[in-house]
Amino acid sequence: MAYKENYPSELLSTAVEAISSLPGVGRRSALRLALHLLRQSPDRVHHITDSINNLRDNVCYCSRCRMISDSDICSICADTKRDQGTICVVESVRDVMSIEATGQYHGVYHVLGGIISPIAGTGPSDLTISELVARVPQAHEVILALPGDVEGETTAFYIYRQIESSGVTVSSLARGLGFGDALEYADSITLGRSIVNRQIFKP
Amino acid sequence: MAYKENYPSELLSTAVEAISSLPGVGRRSALRLALHLLRQSPDRVHHITDSINNLRDNVCYCSRCRMISDSDICSICADTKRDQGTICVVESVRDVMSIEATGQYHGVYHVLGGIISPIAGTGPSDLTISELVARVPQAHEVILALPGDVEGETTAFYIYRQIESSGVTVSSLARGLGFGDALEYADSITLGRSIVNRQIFKP
Repeated sequence: MAYKENYPSELLSTAVEAISSLPGVGRRSALRLALHLLRQSPDRVHHITDSINNLRDNVCYCSRCRMISDSDICSICADTKRDQGTICVVESVRDVMSIEATGQYHGVYHVLGGIISPIAGTGPSDLTISELVARVPQAHEVILALPGDVEGETTAFYIYRQIESSGVTVSSLARGLGFGDALEYADSITLGRSIVNRQIFKP
Repeated sequence: MAYKENYPSELLSTAVEAISSLPGVGRRSALRLALHLLRQSPDRVHHITDSINNLRDNVCYCSRCRMISDSDICSICADTKRDQGTICVVESVRDVMSIEATGQYHGVYHVLGGIISPIAGTGPSDLTISELVARVPQAHEVILALPGDVEGETTAFYIYRQIESSGVTVSSLARGLGFGDALEYADSITLGRSIVNRQIFKP
C-alpha cells in the first residue's frame, strides 16, 4: 500500500480520525463527510466550524433552571405568563425540548444535567440537585419527569427525600400504555401499572 | 412555544442548521451531535473543527494526477517502483483509495474530479481531461476505470476519442458477475456482458 494507514494525505487522515470520534459516525462516513467538505467552498466549511466553535465557546446556561440559553435567565424562566411555581425536573436539555414540543406544559423546568448512576460514576453532587432544593421554597409543585428505568427512579427517590419536608406537592409523569399501543405488545410491567393506575373514564 | 424555531438558543440553532447541511445528517442527528459537542471539553471540540479547517485550507492536489496529496507530487506518482506508463483514469479521490485497497494495481492514476453529466451541468472542461491528454504521450496504457452507468460510458467514450490517435492502448475495467454473485439475482445486462465477454477457464 502506498498510503500511510490507507489515507493519501496526513491532513485527510487527521480530519477523518477527528470526525469519526463523533457518536454514530464510523470511519467510512467520516471519510465521506471529509471528501464532501473538500468539495465545498472554504467559506461554507468555515461557517460550519465557526458555528460549532461559537456554540461550544459561548454557550450559556440559565442561572435558574440550567437550560441552554443565550442570556443569564432563559426565555422560559423569564416568561411571566408561565407558572413559575411549577418546576418540572428533567435529566437533560433534550428533555426540555421534547416536553416543549408537546405544547402541554406551562410551568418552568430544572435541568439536572444527568442522572444518578453508580455505573457511570455520576453521584448527586455531579447534578444540580442542591440548586433545585434551593428553588423549592418558591414552588408549589415539583414534577419529576425522569426516565422510567432504575437510575431514573433512584434519582427521583433521592430528590423526593431531599424536598419532602418542604411540604411541596411532588408528582411524576403518568406511566402506562402509549398512544396507539396494542395491549398484546405492551410489556407486562407497563401493562400492570396501567391497570393499577387506571383512571376514571371521561368520554 | 417559548423557543424561536423550537431551539432554546440562537447559538444552538445556528450550529444545528450548519451541521444538518452535511449529507446524510438530518436535523435530529445534528441536534444530537451539537448536544454531544457541548458535553466535550473545548479543546476536544477545537481539535475537531481545527482538523476540518486545516484540511479545507491546506489540502494539496498532486500536480500530475490530481490526487489529494501533502506535497506537489503524490506518493504514488513519486514511487519509482510503480509503472509510470500505465495510467488508471478515475472519477474521484475515493476511487483511487478503493483501487489501492485491492493491492492489485501497480500503475499510476489520473483523477478527473467528476464525470460528464449534462443533468448536473458538468462538461469536459470542468474535468482534468486536457491534463490527462497531455500525459498520454508518456504512457503505454490508459485504463478507463469509470462508473458503469450512462454518464460513465459517455465520459469514457469522450476520453477515448481524445486519445485514440496517440496509439496508446486504451482498456476498461472488466464487467461481469461479482465475486459470490448468484446468476439468478444478477441483472440481465450484467449477466449478458458476462456471457459475451467470457474468459478461457484457467483452473
